[in-house]
Amino acid sequence: MKVFVIGIGLIGGSFALDLKSVLKKVEVFGIDRSEDHLDKALELGLIDHKANFEDLDKADLVYLAIPVDSSLEVLPKVLDQVNDNCVVTDAGSTKEHLCRGIADHPKRRNFLAGHPISGTEFSGPTAAIHGLFRNKTNIICEVEKTAFKLQERALEIFQAIGMRIRYMDPVSHDRHIAYVSHLSHISSFMLGKTVLEKEKNERDIFDLAGSGFESTVRLAKSSPAMWTPIFSLNKKNVMETLDEYISNLKHFRKLMEEDNFEEVFSEMERTNHIREVLNGINQNDEFKIVENGK
Amino acid sequence: MKVFVIGIGLIGGSFALDLKSVLKKVEVFGIDRSEDHLDKALELGLIDHKANFEDLDKADLVYLAIPVDSSLEVLPKVLDQVNDNCVVTDAGSTKEHLCRGIADHPKRRNFLAGHPISGTEFSGPTAAIHGLFRNKTNIICEVEKTAFKLQERALEIFQAIGMRIRYMDPVSHDRHIAYVSHLSHISSFMLGKTVLEKEKNERDIFDLAGSGFESTVRLAKSSPAMWTPIFSLNKKNVMETLDEYISNLKHFRKLMEEDNFEEVFSEMERTNHIREVLNGINQNDEFKIVENGK
Repeated sequence: MKVFVIGIGLIGGSFALDLKSVLKKVEVFGIDRSEDHLDKALELGLIDHKANFEDLDKADLVYLAIPVDSSLEVLPKVLDQVNDNCVVTDAGSTKEHLCRGIADHPKRRNFLAGHPISGTEFSGPTAAIHGLFRNKTNIICEVEKTAFKLQERALEIFQAIGMRIRYMDPVSHDRHIAYVSHLSHISSFMLGKTVLEKEKNERDIFDLAGSGFESTVRLAKSSPAMWTPIFSLNKKNVMETLDEYISNLKHFRKLMEEDNFEEVFSEMERTNHIREVLNGINQNDEFKIVENGK
Repeated sequence: MKVFVIGIGLIGGSFALDLKSVLKKVEVFGIDRSEDHLDKALELGLIDHKANFEDLDKADLVYLAIPVDSSLEVLPKVLDQVNDNCVVTDAGSTKEHLCRGIADHPKRRNFLAGHPISGTEFSGPTAAIHGLFRNKTNIICEVEKTAFKLQERALEIFQAIGMRIRYMDPVSHDRHIAYVSHLSHISSFMLGKTVLEKEKNERDIFDLAGSGFESTVRLAKSSPAMWTPIFSLNKKNVMETLDEYISNLKHFRKLMEEDNFEEVFSEMERTNHIREVLNGINQNDEFKIVENGK
């Protein structure tokens, strides 16, 4: 199988690594704006060959793992190039604009819209790791618009590398993911900003920050090049989550101001329920593994 | 050495465990409002005996690890009971009120105010773990007010269990820690609240939440019984950090509203600097270990 990975960073590179471990015969071709990334990807064995858009007619599978605004431009061009029997899938964190953008493309049936809920705060080909997708959800949008045989090929690969599949329409995807992923990034970035602005003496951050701060601020290490277009393309939903988050913070502040610490306690106690929800995620993982017979 | 741990939960229990591994001859006595916790602590080997306040005259060291509002009441009573050669230290996350409360106590010189920057989101004696304090900072306040020989005894133990020592006055402590620890907890609790309120279908949280959300919301599992009095006693500082956090979030929202994504990018890029700061923490750890000759 000839696989073309467009954008050979954390996600594209990890996908290539996993493919090589589950497929008997696979040749991975890398396409990237950055020649340095391509060289690094070759050196690390993520890809077997550098390639160009003109080579895409040879592809059996194309994996698009670039910032979401670039995908809007690149996906139609990719579809123009691929052959009728190639499946193109992607890893973008917003789906509505992308699906709408190629709705009328003559090769719409060659595209399967995906969003793997996986990643780290790092980026670039050196951040690629084996097993990044294991027990993670891949959200598939508008599955009915993809040719059945091509769906099947992509889904078999996703399952082989350990992903669970969840189907969703693009509008719901973008609304839900704004809460569960995009908002976390803003809360973390703004926490980092608040502390950096205040603590001019970084020794104080060094010495006083515990694992709690490190955990809460981890996402503030994420790539602005990846996240800016996500916030831009999902603007309406993200602003709604921000409004609710700010309103909850203001309410908490008001309770403190009024010395209503009984209610401060209750707010936190109710939110402790997140424990069971997150445990649920893990239980769910275990259940899914059994279900897949692994 | 006879050590009395008052509050045999995550912090007190972990301290007892570590003491037992570094001191040749130590007897640990537990005092706790909860008989269940004491029984569990005995069963887990965290303590050797249950005890009462009347037994405190036998103590060589008392470790106070209870919610900060309870410490305000309990510390003077402990000082009333202990002998002249006993050092009393604590683990509370706010220091100004506590130090002020015992400023004129006849046994002020027996107290060393401490705050170990360590913990997890769990609580109770079953949450106690070995090595919780290794490479963590213990902030010591008003060291000059503690009798030299008693300082020495406590500090030797802190260093033996792997802690770095940092000295600070209580007012600065409470102001800095509001940014680096207390605010993280509120940002996390309110993130959890916002998502739980919106995502009525918890399956959606299960399936869509990645490790990013889990990391950012981790502190929302923390104990309201511990955190409510912290917010109450550090109200002024915490409200100030909340105001700045909310103002930063509003500014981010305004940039989004105005489609000023260039500046959204710059905001995130500047905050990426937190990477180096957090790496600094780790480098600092390594340096400290060498310095201690370990």
